Amino acid sequence: MDATYLQSFLSDSARKTTRSEIRELLELVTQPDVISLAGGMPAPDTFPTEELAELVPSMLRRHGGAALQYGPTEGDAQLREEVRRLTEEDGVTGLTTDRVAITTASQQGLDLCGRVFLTPGDAVVCGLPSYLGALGAFSACGARLAGVPVDDHGIRTDQLEQRLVDLRKSGVRPKLLYVVPDFQNPTGVTLSARRRNELLIIAAEFDLLVIEDSPYRKLRYIGESPPSLAALDSDGRVISLFTFSKILFPGLRLGWVVAAPEIISRLVTAKQPVDLCTSPLCQVVAREFLVAGKLPAVIDRTRTLYAAKRIAMLEALDRHFGGESGVRWTRPEGGMFVWVTLPEYVDARALLAKSLERKVAFVVGSAFHCDGSGTSTLRLNFSFPSIAQLDEGVRRLAEAFEDVRSEIGPRQREPATTEQRPLVVSGEHALDRLALTLALTEMVA
Amino acid sequence: MDATYLQSFLSDSARKTTRSEIRELLELVTQPDVISLAGGMPAPDTFPTEELAELVPSMLRRHGGAALQYGPTEGDAQLREEVRRLTEEDGVTGLTTDRVAITTASQQGLDLCGRVFLTPGDAVVCGLPSYLGALGAFSACGARLAGVPVDDHGIRTDQLEQRLVDLRKSGVRPKLLYVVPDFQNPTGVTLSARRRNELLIIAAEFDLLVIEDSPYRKLRYIGESPPSLAALDSDGRVISLFTFSKILFPGLRLGWVVAAPEIISRLVTAKQPVDLCTSPLCQVVAREFLVAGKLPAVIDRTRTLYAAKRIAMLEALDRHFGGESGVRWTRPEGGMFVWVTLPEYVDARALLAKSLERKVAFVVGSAFHCDGSGTSTLRLNFSFPSIAQLDEGVRRLAEAFEDVRSEIGPRQREPATTEQRPLVVSGEHALDRLALTLALTEMVA
Repeated sequence: MDATYLQSFLSDSARKTTRSEIRELLELVTQPDVISLAGGMPAPDTFPTEELAELVPSMLRRHGGAALQYGPTEGDAQLREEVRRLTEEDGVTGLTTDRVAITTASQQGLDLCGRVFLTPGDAVVCGLPSYLGALGAFSACGARLAGVPVDDHGIRTDQLEQRLVDLRKSGVRPKLLYVVPDFQNPTGVTLSARRRNELLIIAAEFDLLVIEDSPYRKLRYIGESPPSLAALDSDGRVISLFTFSKILFPGLRLGWVVAAPEIISRLVTAKQPVDLCTSPLCQVVAREFLVAGKLPAVIDRTRTLYAAKRIAMLEALDRHFGGESGVRWTRPEGGMFVWVTLPEYVDARALLAKSLERKVAFVVGSAFHCDGSGTSTLRLNFSFPSIAQLDEGVRRLAEAFEDVRSEIGPRQREPATTEQRPLVVSGEHALDRLALTLALTEMVA
Repeated sequence: MDATYLQSFLSDSARKTTRSEIRELLELVTQPDVISLAGGMPAPDTFPTEELAELVPSMLRRHGGAALQYGPTEGDAQLREEVRRLTEEDGVTGLTTDRVAITTASQQGLDLCGRVFLTPGDAVVCGLPSYLGALGAFSACGARLAGVPVDDHGIRTDQLEQRLVDLRKSGVRPKLLYVVPDFQNPTGVTLSARRRNELLIIAAEFDLLVIEDSPYRKLRYIGESPPSLAALDSDGRVISLFTFSKILFPGLRLGWVVAAPEIISRLVTAKQPVDLCTSPLCQVVAREFLVAGKLPAVIDRTRTLYAAKRIAMLEALDRHFGGESGVRWTRPEGGMFVWVTLPEYVDARALLAKSLERKVAFVVGSAFHCDGSGTSTLRLNFSFPSIAQLDEGVRRLAEAFEDVRSEIGPRQREPATTEQRPLVVSGEHALDRLALTLALTEMVA
């Protein structure tokens, strides 16, 4: 069985997935001593290791029969009630249990939405940029992707409306609109309250289901949160995905989805042949942790730590990229990422090459753009590196930036010509980019 | 958002999934005091609750950083090494780590095989009957199913060859052959050594990949195991799926796949957008359990318990269905199921209705037949019920059988006419039947 022979057995979707770019990059990034600003991982200091070590033995002795057995596909009844209450506390009033199901982290929520709603060729509207795992999940279902620019206040609702009109004219009627409204991965920006309302009006007008992917909402360090899309939803059009990965720990692979009962029922049916049920062991661990009232303290200490790291990263950027570098960046009020925009004449891939020479890694922004734009942008993570690494990492990044600038020379520093991008693109490269980003993330694991 | 409106958003594959039959049945089976011979669950007595309660705290204190964090998509390196060794001990010599990946139980292995190999319309050859979760996973990918009869020695290799010739004549070239060689779910039968060799020769001749689904292989109570297909595979054509669900506990949702490196690489790429990684918490729990050498004792006590339950069930069948009932059943040497064949004039659905009146549940055999045949067969589980319940359950089943016989009357006891079944069928009903079986299973949870 060699790779060429295997080719003849592959499904259409597997055949479209290539992996060439990754392997080259992996050789560069798996060097020792690299400071990675590339990952998307929580800081291990936030993990409730000791609390779990104390809680798990009695949990097993009392609930082992359920925790070690198969469980219902829609999730443990008591955990569903716990996350229902958690969601209701965030402003989703009158939430009934039939609107809640447990998923194997929110990545599975994305995959199930793809399976339930997307036939190959169907279009999904997403931000430019967007979370790569979502683009990957929709692309694996054969989706085409239509990107709408994101600015400091989230997805541009004016351009969203115009894009939908243009798509309709060319015969494309997207089914889904995908957004991360709070501290978006990768930009860190939050969708403004006004745009949230506009977005829902547009979704109703163009008959779109809205996927609200919400892993970071509770990780706010300054300011106030606008209402969630789930709280604003009046006609059952919003599917909200939540996860314990960023507020408790990712090793659980545990999330939940909130949607209209009919949608929940479809998602649960689609989940059956995928994994029968999410790990009851993980579910009972999370449930007992919540029942014991231990979640708020973990979220509090996570917020305190990340707030300090956020300041460290923003101060480092001010210090090393201040003045006339032409580099801009977002100032997120929460989450785990800062988004950097280089002068247009600098390609982030060239910067990554120079950065890796100085042993600093980040993710190039074009990876998050379904249409391949965003070539002079990049994503920096501040949750995982230490404060010392954040400062040193940004310092080296600034040196690498100077390396690139000096190689380019002043005469070539012309803005790139604005290329006309297609309205809707095939998602097949998103899967490749997902693999690339995971490779970068795993480097620091 | 009502069900009718939602319909317009559904993908082709979701639209084909109906759930009517289940709800009716659920009302019947969720009565209290039902003895369920329907499930497929391990006995909770086999769960290593106390061993885990002792092991987990020190595990968390030593390995919490990895257990609570994200992990590699292909699985924890040390766990891969542990399961590699476990597989090698079972006769798969020279097994390298690049031929092993961790999955979120073997159900995910089935789903990933579907995604990597099946484009809607592609055909899969499977047993008549077959494990419903596999039919569901392949059907969700749009597969067509071609069934080949199973007898007391496993899938009929003579008919397999003939079926492949016939399919080829009608222009259908299946890509995959799906088998559970050891103590098959649902029949309990084991594929003979001779047929294993024949099957691999036929697979090479007709250029099929073979999926060997092997959850029960270590649960042998009498006799000797023929070599696994993985051990006999000489050209990298076999993909073997293993799971901890039946030999440790299902709440882990942890399995592994053994295949050619190129296939492993494709399966791992397909896994990325599905769940990023399998729960590192569950992986580290399993790994430390294995490293501590605690698995053999769990398997031993599981074997001892199930061996006694198997005898109890076979003796109850002898006692209550002996003589001239015309009822036949398999005598499996391991696993968790006995397969019952009623006289041809008795429909198992009629028997189920009468059985539920007497508060006994089982799964009708036609659910496991992709072509809807097998109407006078049924599956009985002996791993979960107590020995007393096994005897009482079979006793009531025999009473229900007499109820059905007396209603039919002697004159109608003619064998059904043999209907000509199509060579290959759409898999869309398999998903419905999977939901049904899960509903039956969850009843006893």
